[in-house]
Amino acid sequence: MKKIVIFGAGRSSTSLIDYLLSIANDQDLNIVVLDFDEELAKSKINNHPKASAFYIDATKRLERLKFIHDANLVISMLPAHMHFEVVKDAISEKVHVITPSYVTKEIESLHEDAINNNVLVLNEMGLDPGIDHMSAKKIIDEIQENGGELTGFESFTGGLVAPESDDNPWNYKFTWNPRNVVLAGQGGAAKFIQEGKYKYIPYNKLFRRTEIIEIEGYGKFEGYANRDSLSYRSIYGLDDIPTMFRGTLRKIGFCRAWNVFVQLGVTDDSYIIEGSEDMTNREFFNSFLAYNPHDSVELKLRHYLGIEQDDYIWEKLVWLGIFEDKKIGLKNATPAQMLQKILKDKWSLSEDDKDMIVMWHKFNYKLNQVDKEIRSHMVYIGKDSQFTAMSDTVGLPLGVAAKLLLNGEIKAKGVLLPITKEIYQPVLRELKEFGVSFTEKEVTPVFY
Amino acid sequence: MKKIVIFGAGRSSTSLIDYLLSIANDQDLNIVVLDFDEELAKSKINNHPKASAFYIDATKRLERLKFIHDANLVISMLPAHMHFEVVKDAISEKVHVITPSYVTKEIESLHEDAINNNVLVLNEMGLDPGIDHMSAKKIIDEIQENGGELTGFESFTGGLVAPESDDNPWNYKFTWNPRNVVLAGQGGAAKFIQEGKYKYIPYNKLFRRTEIIEIEGYGKFEGYANRDSLSYRSIYGLDDIPTMFRGTLRKIGFCRAWNVFVQLGVTDDSYIIEGSEDMTNREFFNSFLAYNPHDSVELKLRHYLGIEQDDYIWEKLVWLGIFEDKKIGLKNATPAQMLQKILKDKWSLSEDDKDMIVMWHKFNYKLNQVDKEIRSHMVYIGKDSQFTAMSDTVGLPLGVAAKLLLNGEIKAKGVLLPITKEIYQPVLRELKEFGVSFTEKEVTPVFY
Repeated sequence: MKKIVIFGAGRSSTSLIDYLLSIANDQDLNIVVLDFDEELAKSKINNHPKASAFYIDATKRLERLKFIHDANLVISMLPAHMHFEVVKDAISEKVHVITPSYVTKEIESLHEDAINNNVLVLNEMGLDPGIDHMSAKKIIDEIQENGGELTGFESFTGGLVAPESDDNPWNYKFTWNPRNVVLAGQGGAAKFIQEGKYKYIPYNKLFRRTEIIEIEGYGKFEGYANRDSLSYRSIYGLDDIPTMFRGTLRKIGFCRAWNVFVQLGVTDDSYIIEGSEDMTNREFFNSFLAYNPHDSVELKLRHYLGIEQDDYIWEKLVWLGIFEDKKIGLKNATPAQMLQKILKDKWSLSEDDKDMIVMWHKFNYKLNQVDKEIRSHMVYIGKDSQFTAMSDTVGLPLGVAAKLLLNGEIKAKGVLLPITKEIYQPVLRELKEFGVSFTEKEVTPVFY
Repeated sequence: MKKIVIFGAGRSSTSLIDYLLSIANDQDLNIVVLDFDEELAKSKINNHPKASAFYIDATKRLERLKFIHDANLVISMLPAHMHFEVVKDAISEKVHVITPSYVTKEIESLHEDAINNNVLVLNEMGLDPGIDHMSAKKIIDEIQENGGELTGFESFTGGLVAPESDDNPWNYKFTWNPRNVVLAGQGGAAKFIQEGKYKYIPYNKLFRRTEIIEIEGYGKFEGYANRDSLSYRSIYGLDDIPTMFRGTLRKIGFCRAWNVFVQLGVTDDSYIIEGSEDMTNREFFNSFLAYNPHDSVELKLRHYLGIEQDDYIWEKLVWLGIFEDKKIGLKNATPAQMLQKILKDKWSLSEDDKDMIVMWHKFNYKLNQVDKEIRSHMVYIGKDSQFTAMSDTVGLPLGVAAKLLLNGEIKAKGVLLPITKEIYQPVLRELKEFGVSFTEKEVTPVFY
């Protein structure tokens, strides 16, 4: 019997726990789910005979060690900043760890420790990061094995609402952390490289320099640049690749409307709005417009940002209720917090809504002096409001990797990412059975 | 004989030292000038019999105390973050201090200490802060003494080039710290209050929401909002004033052109440009424009920001040489540092150039239910490249305050600003003799 200890039973753990319960008998697993909210943890294991659930204060080392001590594998679904302590404990107890989060320099520094203790610390094993790495690295490796030389890699991922639940003018609903959506792109310029030229996009232009892609059967999407595309060059072993671009997908039309918020300054999270508690939507937006006692808030905003009355973005703004005299009701709130509250009232998934994950890759390469291009995409639609596309695409790769690791099919040790064949091949193969599958095709490259 | 110890002999100390030397015999002063650069300190006292100059490492407490110990007054012209230690030393030695810098919370916390030691710590005694406080508070006090109630205060200050030296399309040259000019407005939204409504301007709109003012004989200027106008309400005792706005002046047309840099992102100081060392002006600007092998950098920039070929801002940009294939030559530089280098080559004052300080205030008030308005402005032109308008308007109020303090005409104790009559009346009176004088007039208020 192999014991898997899961730290954290939140939304993102639902599909992971469900998958592990489904293979528990077959694989002879003992699954322990820990959370600060014991009821939540218990609800996730659904009285499964091979599973148990307990309260934990994961900030306390002794409590952690009690559970890690006799485990075979720890899966940390805690907030990212808490992984390091869990990883340290696990290595000292010679227990493997898997996380869905970006590896930090701190965790990387434990690589030798992990090897010396015969332990695998597998990071970035969810969707993005996770499935993006595996699906990209698979094709990169194939191209290189055939003697091709990569000249460009572009990749976009988006967490969106499924077409059957797409019923608002923004073609968007919050399917994950709303705060991350409101703050997206802040904190520094987006950096990438194109045809050997480094390019920088400041926040105030980020949502205007989008790329448009089309996916058969799903229509047009647009992608804005992620902050750091450059570091993926070394991760994928493509240090000299002339083009490397990563971005986030929205349905077309979203970014130009979102840019209104960026230009107004309502996404700012760095200061408190005076008297936020008593403000209405309308008053909040008015505080970003010049004083004028005669013109309406609507007219001032349109004039300020040059928006025509029949522009499609105008409909989006009005639909959100930003001009309504409705109290927001947040005390000492930042602009970003006020905006998030307004958006949450409109962009929340209802019980019946389904979400959708879209991932899209473009690989350019030279083979025998000929320019070639491969495109690959995956669209995955959630089952319901519990087993969302986000939960499935984060949880399933984690669960499959856990199985393979305990099976002995994954033998690597150290602090690693899922970018080697040993990991991505069997994981991608099993994900396919769950409908997480990529459509790959060779296309004729188009150049400027 | 009274001993004045001046820490720092840089550019901003020139007029101060000159003023003190000019009154040294009359007032029986002994003037000690200290600097890390002893030659510089010596050059500033010009062998005056009542003055001496020495090397100091002002970061060392014992060195500071050696000079502070038997002084009657310390004037700290050190970088602002170094004032606190000097003030602490001076208070402990029962010696008065004057600085031209914004008072910090740290220094404010020494108020009781200063009073108990019978010491005055007079901050914000230069131009801005300094002359702005005094000239504003004078009129505010007059209005209130006549029974008027302040309803609005707007104030702008600018360090500019004098009309006789104004020979470039930007109507601007660096007359002070270039870095501050490049970074101006960054780090948070500009906040002010207008007609009782709080207003916020994000950085990306700061240079588009300017106010235009005209000064007889000097033409049109435009002002962009300073980051914090709100704190001046409590400083001036106007906590409930419905309108409070402070800004920075440029000649008209500057801000719309500067906004090009803001929109491109070239004023960003938060990251390093890859390969900055080998970049030309043209390559640097190209890295903020989308990749396109067919269009010129000029065309891409015009198209991106919607600039017509015959727009006046286009001439400004071309004149700066931003499209030239000229090496910038900075290693590991941020965009802001690269831009600053390009600007410095074009915007530096020549030996014969003169600078100009412009300050403008607008006071609205109600007197016997009638709306009234007073405007006040000061224009001061520098004498030469040594005795600049900036150096004079910073140094003279410091020097005059020093004289009044040692004379016993200023008797206040504690950590203070020059906002009481005891200080601003005699200082403004003497500044007038030096040509630093305000033109005040009552005008008919214009409302929206």
